[in-house]
Amino acid sequence: MTRKRNPVRGPQRQAAPRRRTGADGDPPAPGAPYWIYGAHAVAAALNNPHRRLLRLLYVEPGAPALLAAAGRRGPLDVAAAERAAIARLLPDGAVHQGVAARVAPLPPVDLEGLLQGLPDGADAAVVVLDRVTDPHNVGAVLRSSAAFGAAAVVVTERHAAPESGALAKAASGALDHVPLVRVTNLARALAALKRAGFWCAGFAADADSTIAEAALRGRVALVLGSEGEGLRRLTRETCDLLVRLPTGGPIRQLNVSNAAAVALYELARGRRQDRAEDDR
Amino acid sequence: MTRKRNPVRGPQRQAAPRRRTGADGDPPAPGAPYWIYGAHAVAAALNNPHRRLLRLLYVEPGAPALLAAAGRRGPLDVAAAERAAIARLLPDGAVHQGVAARVAPLPPVDLEGLLQGLPDGADAAVVVLDRVTDPHNVGAVLRSSAAFGAAAVVVTERHAAPESGALAKAASGALDHVPLVRVTNLARALAALKRAGFWCAGFAADADSTIAEAALRGRVALVLGSEGEGLRRLTRETCDLLVRLPTGGPIRQLNVSNAAAVALYELARGRRQDRAEDDR
Repeated sequence: MTRKRNPVRGPQRQAAPRRRTGADGDPPAPGAPYWIYGAHAVAAALNNPHRRLLRLLYVEPGAPALLAAAGRRGPLDVAAAERAAIARLLPDGAVHQGVAARVAPLPPVDLEGLLQGLPDGADAAVVVLDRVTDPHNVGAVLRSSAAFGAAAVVVTERHAAPESGALAKAASGALDHVPLVRVTNLARALAALKRAGFWCAGFAADADSTIAEAALRGRVALVLGSEGEGLRRLTRETCDLLVRLPTGGPIRQLNVSNAAAVALYELARGRRQDRAEDDR
Repeated sequence: MTRKRNPVRGPQRQAAPRRRTGADGDPPAPGAPYWIYGAHAVAAALNNPHRRLLRLLYVEPGAPALLAAAGRRGPLDVAAAERAAIARLLPDGAVHQGVAARVAPLPPVDLEGLLQGLPDGADAAVVVLDRVTDPHNVGAVLRSSAAFGAAAVVVTERHAAPESGALAKAASGALDHVPLVRVTNLARALAALKRAGFWCAGFAADADSTIAEAALRGRVALVLGSEGEGLRRLTRETCDLLVRLPTGGPIRQLNVSNAAAVALYELARGRRQDRAEDDR
């Protein structure tokens, strides 16, 4: 999986921030630097050539692979620090595992450019989140998207979790592997996905078909709403079809990141099954 | 799904707590009362006859269904409060949706008793978590367990998230529907599950078979480890078989609650497929 970025808008957006951030740096003002923490998240940031790093702090002796990756970055302020000193830079209770990196947010990703860059005619999956505000959920969706090979996670610019240390930690490195695409208008983003050959499948508890029954194949956008409110009406109406997860019992709705993981799993399972049948 | 409890130990454990809890009440000392918050979590607590409630606070006018449920509870201290006053009782940033309930932890559930209470010869699923300390993960696993009809979630008494407001919120009501069983020794719990006819399937990234290939049927315990460390060696060796999720790409491990959701989904899907084939 490779990152596609808009080379024109990226650097402009990176150079812009002059706003102050709080001491804990999390959540940061849009565009402002923030702290990434935790071994996986920091390693992925260090190994992402598109990620601008400002500073790396580690508890001695520091992981050799991490320090080697830092050495390959060229000029970078690397310093040993006390565990507690690192903790003071981070949100309360952050599990930093002895390492934190001050980073600039990733350059914005242009959805149309990303879609044009997909291999011609190849299957693809994209997860679209309608107003999911919890950074742990967005992070976990990125992580599952990386694990099941989705091409991108699309969120709205407003009413969605901003890029932050908590999101990067929950993504466990996936923020630096799977493009997190912010769009101003979700209905227009779905229209762009449709033009690129994606079936837009919206998740709704009242849908007639389960995702397995819908037998989604080819290019598929899995569209999930916020936990309280589900999909907004316009999002729902813009989808090609509505599907549900086959849940029952006293609690029928899954956590949104759990729902996305199950949907990504089922999509991959159906494809493997098709290939196995083709091979017979 | 019904709750099974040990009628002797339950009340004793409920009467014991005399320890102080912090003002935010979260996480509480074991056995001490704590605040549950959020509409789903509070509604489930109010509607659970086994749940001891001490106090209900709501922002006026209050949801009619919630107040009616409170009325059916008999003597209960119910009071209107300012939104900010409720927030001050809860952890920072808790999304309380205008309602909070001071509750006693649920009476302990005895694993052997629960297993004996399962319908003879019926299929069943149980999720076993080896040292999962994040309350959001344990809560989300309870929620998925409720949605996919699992009989219980088993955790260790130590090195696992205690019952708390954050756990109850993440469970979105499922804490009052699916028994959360705490055991002192996980290997002994797995032995008890085996005696009750459960296949114990441990999740490990290096397993040869995927969960779908293993074609798990009948009574199944899905055993998942903590995210950093996976299953402990003794847990792993006590399982009947090891399985993995069919992930690939740069990030292969899912968040533990996401992994549990996918596993529960696949288990239910396999069973439905069998029934459909039997019907042909």
